[in-house]
Amino acid sequence: MKRRNFLGASALAAGVLFAEGAGAKGSAGGSTKLPPVVHHVFFWLKNPDSVADRDKLVEGLKTLAGIPIIRELHVGLLASTEKRDVVDTSWQVSELMFFDNVADQLAYQQHPIHLDFVKNYSHLWAKVVVYDANNVYSK
Amino acid sequence: MKRRNFLGASALAAGVLFAEGAGAKGSAGGSTKLPPVVHHVFFWLKNPDSVADRDKLVEGLKTLAGIPIIRELHVGLLASTEKRDVVDTSWQVSELMFFDNVADQLAYQQHPIHLDFVKNYSHLWAKVVVYDANNVYSK
Repeated sequence: MKRRNFLGASALAAGVLFAEGAGAKGSAGGSTKLPPVVHHVFFWLKNPDSVADRDKLVEGLKTLAGIPIIRELHVGLLASTEKRDVVDTSWQVSELMFFDNVADQLAYQQHPIHLDFVKNYSHLWAKVVVYDANNVYSK
Repeated sequence: MKRRNFLGASALAAGVLFAEGAGAKGSAGGSTKLPPVVHHVFFWLKNPDSVADRDKLVEGLKTLAGIPIIRELHVGLLASTEKRDVVDTSWQVSELMFFDNVADQLAYQQHPIHLDFVKNYSHLWAKVVVYDANNVYSK
């Protein structure tokens, strides 16, 4: 089983597009059934101290729930965990989504509801950073 | 319901430690039952092209599954999504966890299995960035 995990990981690293989702599912081996593609976005507001702007962006992110291929949508604010050098506490709002595969993530980027979100809310943020991960193990 | 969400978010922003988890749970309102505290860590390897080092770090991250207060553990590799300016594709390995509250996240930092992980595997990475988010909406 362990060997299969690492074979799966190597296949992913080679960038095999449609094998990716299936590979990650096959190698997860845990009890957790999250879709394998993790899309995590962090937003830095133009007005970082504005609760109104923060709440407006949260409201905008909720509209994305209308896109069926998003498997889960979680909207977050900075948690009050301990401050350590490695913890980035400079952002204000986050969006965490899961997709069944990278093709769905690409389709999401082009979905009219997502394009409307960008059109209507992008004036609120100064910077955005996206991390796209492919699960190779879940427990 | 919407009003309750925003009251919850304001309480969180004020840094109310133990109210945080409960507030996020209460305000989520969606069908998804993920624990509210999201802990997402990205690793940049000292040898970014080393598949052996990458696999060794993945192996190390799997040991964290032995820590009971981690509600879910997902180990990821860079997904082959489209390359856009906002997408950070410079990291190699990620770890995504959920906790019931920020106190559990702090306890995790001090757990012997986590300390062993840092002792045994930190020579592999050059940089680590942590994002701790508190879910205010899940769907």
